[in-house]
Amino acid sequence: MSRIDFWYSIGSTYTFLTVMRLPRWAEDNGVEVAWMPFDVRAIMKAQQNIPFAGKPKKSAYMWRDIERRAAKYGLHAELPAPYPISDLSLANQVALLGMQDGWGEAFTQTLYRMWFNEATDAGTETALSEALFRVQQDPLPVLARARDMADALAEQTARAETLGVFGSPSFVVGGELFWGDDRLEDALSWSKVGHVT
Amino acid sequence: MSRIDFWYSIGSTYTFLTVMRLPRWAEDNGVEVAWMPFDVRAIMKAQQNIPFAGKPKKSAYMWRDIERRAAKYGLHAELPAPYPISDLSLANQVALLGMQDGWGEAFTQTLYRMWFNEATDAGTETALSEALFRVQQDPLPVLARARDMADALAEQTARAETLGVFGSPSFVVGGELFWGDDRLEDALSWSKVGHVT
Repeated sequence: MSRIDFWYSIGSTYTFLTVMRLPRWAEDNGVEVAWMPFDVRAIMKAQQNIPFAGKPKKSAYMWRDIERRAAKYGLHAELPAPYPISDLSLANQVALLGMQDGWGEAFTQTLYRMWFNEATDAGTETALSEALFRVQQDPLPVLARARDMADALAEQTARAETLGVFGSPSFVVGGELFWGDDRLEDALSWSKVGHVT
Repeated sequence: MSRIDFWYSIGSTYTFLTVMRLPRWAEDNGVEVAWMPFDVRAIMKAQQNIPFAGKPKKSAYMWRDIERRAAKYGLHAELPAPYPISDLSLANQVALLGMQDGWGEAFTQTLYRMWFNEATDAGTETALSEALFRVQQDPLPVLARARDMADALAEQTARAETLGVFGSPSFVVGGELFWGDDRLEDALSWSKVGHVT
């Protein structure tokens, strides 16, 4: 079976589209997807890559583009969602822990749903606790364990950087990098036939 | 017939894909496209939007992404092409003049071909002269007239800004803005059915 590594950070807006459509999409296309949380904000800071802050026209376009594409995918979204979220690190540490434990995808989808459907700042501990509760995880012990995942997230982030990843969502297929929800089909094509169709 | 306004600047890399595939695409899809040169660099400076300068990882990705997509569209490209080009203003003034005179599309395609296939800096007067010569225009008088088009290009750029345009290529369909060669199909869908399919 083809395999795609899905590098993502909770806190990225366009990643909403991928997170919500990916499980069904992977099944429909017969492809295995590994979810890889990392800290995109750390990479962006290091690379002085500031996509939206202080850019009102580009930001307005981003929300409109997401709105149109969400409708295309049949996804509900109340836009604009709170942005930027207050903190990325702990949210992605929880997601990384969840990938080890087996509830990471459900947690990520639930948190994005709270962020994009319920206008919740997805970076607060309150939001993380609520999302954990909704995926039937006990918030207090999980958050305690997630706080110890800072080094593990930094290692994942370093791995992402080595692969050339500079934004979220990104897809890696056998060393080939694709950036953006709108490149998911290119990544699939690459995984099947080694070029973009 | 549906109508799409194609806002573009010579100097934009991704615009290569659109410029080269657009005439055939428009015919295949039964859509009328108006080519609208403007000065994207002026807007980007004003909005402090710096997509690639000083961002080596993102730049490397950009060239690779263009290479894959050019192959998808059957377009030849020698990459990376010289970037950034030395000057945008006069090139786009010539293109704007060409749109009035009827040779603007051919000129734009020819100049992009020189830039992306022959490693020519598309911003020099030598390159503009050669491109004009290749589309059977007399370079000296055309360049003289184009030098007087600075105000006209600034007006077009102001129009683009009013529409929310912040990058090239952009597509406008009845007030709806789409940014990026990869949104051309979304713009088409919008022009036909009023949503993205």
